[in-house]
Amino acid sequence: MYQFSEPFRDPTGSPIRELFKYLGEPGMISVAGGYPASDLFDLDGLQHAAANAWSQPARCLQYGPTDGLPELKDEIARIMRQRGVSVTSTETMVTTGSQQGFDLLLRVMIEPGDVVLTEQPAYPATLQALRMQRARVVTIPVDEDGLDVARLTAMLESGAAGRPKLLYTVPTFANPTGATLTRERRAALLDLAIRFDFLIVEDEPYADLRFAGEFVPSLLSLAEQMDGARERLVYLGSLSKIVAPGLRIGWLVAPSDIVRRCVVAKQTADLCSAPWLQAIGAAYLAEGALQRHLPRITGVYQRKCAALCDALDAQLGSVVQFQRPEGGMFVWARMDGIDASALLAQAIHERVLFVPGTAFYADRVDASTFRLSFAAPGVDEFGEAVSRLARARQSIQNGASPR
Amino acid sequence: MYQFSEPFRDPTGSPIRELFKYLGEPGMISVAGGYPASDLFDLDGLQHAAANAWSQPARCLQYGPTDGLPELKDEIARIMRQRGVSVTSTETMVTTGSQQGFDLLLRVMIEPGDVVLTEQPAYPATLQALRMQRARVVTIPVDEDGLDVARLTAMLESGAAGRPKLLYTVPTFANPTGATLTRERRAALLDLAIRFDFLIVEDEPYADLRFAGEFVPSLLSLAEQMDGARERLVYLGSLSKIVAPGLRIGWLVAPSDIVRRCVVAKQTADLCSAPWLQAIGAAYLAEGALQRHLPRITGVYQRKCAALCDALDAQLGSVVQFQRPEGGMFVWARMDGIDASALLAQAIHERVLFVPGTAFYADRVDASTFRLSFAAPGVDEFGEAVSRLARARQSIQNGASPR
Repeated sequence: MYQFSEPFRDPTGSPIRELFKYLGEPGMISVAGGYPASDLFDLDGLQHAAANAWSQPARCLQYGPTDGLPELKDEIARIMRQRGVSVTSTETMVTTGSQQGFDLLLRVMIEPGDVVLTEQPAYPATLQALRMQRARVVTIPVDEDGLDVARLTAMLESGAAGRPKLLYTVPTFANPTGATLTRERRAALLDLAIRFDFLIVEDEPYADLRFAGEFVPSLLSLAEQMDGARERLVYLGSLSKIVAPGLRIGWLVAPSDIVRRCVVAKQTADLCSAPWLQAIGAAYLAEGALQRHLPRITGVYQRKCAALCDALDAQLGSVVQFQRPEGGMFVWARMDGIDASALLAQAIHERVLFVPGTAFYADRVDASTFRLSFAAPGVDEFGEAVSRLARARQSIQNGASPR
Repeated sequence: MYQFSEPFRDPTGSPIRELFKYLGEPGMISVAGGYPASDLFDLDGLQHAAANAWSQPARCLQYGPTDGLPELKDEIARIMRQRGVSVTSTETMVTTGSQQGFDLLLRVMIEPGDVVLTEQPAYPATLQALRMQRARVVTIPVDEDGLDVARLTAMLESGAAGRPKLLYTVPTFANPTGATLTRERRAALLDLAIRFDFLIVEDEPYADLRFAGEFVPSLLSLAEQMDGARERLVYLGSLSKIVAPGLRIGWLVAPSDIVRRCVVAKQTADLCSAPWLQAIGAAYLAEGALQRHLPRITGVYQRKCAALCDALDAQLGSVVQFQRPEGGMFVWARMDGIDASALLAQAIHERVLFVPGTAFYADRVDASTFRLSFAAPGVDEFGEAVSRLARARQSIQNGASPR
């Protein structure tokens, strides 16, 4: 009978999505998924935008241009201007979530065996996409200031990083570490891209979710001031974390010849992203609803993050190490001497879900790490969530067998 | 600087989508695109379904399961039962249009150089997807009864068709030919799939658009009665032509192990199809709106098809050959001694758009062929459209230089 292509012989999917099956269970608290808070969706604003979009129903219901509806591309250009970057229409395309942007980019750029650099730990769907495109992944460690650019420099100079074709990074409020790359490191990273001639993929879904610390400009905006840098930058944006994932609206900004090829790839991938939702998204943005609503999201996330971190300090302070993030959705933690996968097995029994660190490593796994998301639970649930974590840890210490 | 992966060195995209730039021009009549008629969209039904879906806004706006919302999968199972096939949940997944279903399938099945059989002429986005996956395409001719299965048999027996991994076909109201594979040929094709051990991809977006002739069961439903056939069938369905393309709702039915891998591939492609539109689609189908609305679409398409074919007979009867289809959206035509691409250049000048046959051939192009779609124009526009075509032909006969 049929045989699957090589990357699919072993049909292992996302370990995070594997956890979904527990989500609906009664009494479960999840700090696992990268879900934004459902109760923070701007229902009035979106309903209003939907009514606006429906004023041209055929435009919602018919096929649309593969690169996106012009009115949405205009709004994306406006967002990018607010982020300090001016983009033309040929440098921008709408994608079905930013996940598709990365996938299309890999399809047009990567031959099997090409070297791709990623931060480690990294977003699992990124690693999965690279595996399916048969890239050779070389991982660069991160610390509290994001990607370790000095280490990357040494690896590039010594040849240990191969001859990379591109580097993937979430420089602001990274998934999973929550860390933000410093401005100095950003400049140094751009230098490296020019010197060693690779593309940087800057994935920026969380940057607007800052609730503490100081704004750091995107790599793309810094690249505008540096000869030879802008043409090496591919920027992925998304409405998923700042409006709603259900819109499936992301975008890709890149040099026009890259965008043109990604549009061709998109013709065979899904022809076009849903015009109905693009029209709703464009109307929402045109009304200024995002700027009105964002402070509400960041205000709540700030309180939730504090609640989670305070609970960790209070209940597990002596055994857990973590860094308080300045935005985004994630806290990255380590419990020395504990295998986080074993901890999860106990935690499910205690009715709390998180993601073991193994999911985020392409190699050299640190099994004592894990990711906690503070976005979705209620602000008053974190104390209980951490109590359950502590009980799960206690069970392991007491020699509980994995369930 | 960067180099693109091999299939993207030449960034040629869909020749049909290239024609889009002329669509908005004043006075242009288009019989080019595979667009359904915008004025036949069921606005009331969809508005009602949208209001229903919004009763659970967080469900619309949050991430959804990669394989699709359960309520939509239930409705898809109901559609498939109406089409004579019983499918389980693990044999079905929702895709972002059926285009994505084919793309995902190629990604999990095809290694570079694998042989894929297609009918010729065939849908261009299919050929493009195969090129990008680096498949070796072997074409099988079609006639007025669809795929020439006797020829295929000879090619398989002689080795001229290689050792194919899969065969792609639109057996009912094919794009571009409008032809429907006879029941006898369907049975013979299933036999071949078993005998030569290949998968059949049955792409079925048009089957509900029958306005003449007799119902022919799908390959998938015939496969149910034949040992060893069902496990070699992959079926692609879509709401694009019977509800609206803007929903971007398609589905894939296949053996569970294939579906499982396509779901993994979809995790990296776009995580999930838009839950908001899935909820609207599910509500629309649950209300029975599709069955109420379909006769309106087929009734109008019947009149449009007759108007186009009558105009061709009346104005170009002596120089154009074509077959009247029994459903779908397309008429395939041939004008001996005329290069259809040159005809298009003149036709654009005369303000009428169609698609030259070259777009549908992977090899051995018949340049005198072209595709006319009767779905989108008004029923009273076909006389004028064909007059313009006739004038364009006359210009060429008179030795007009290409514009």
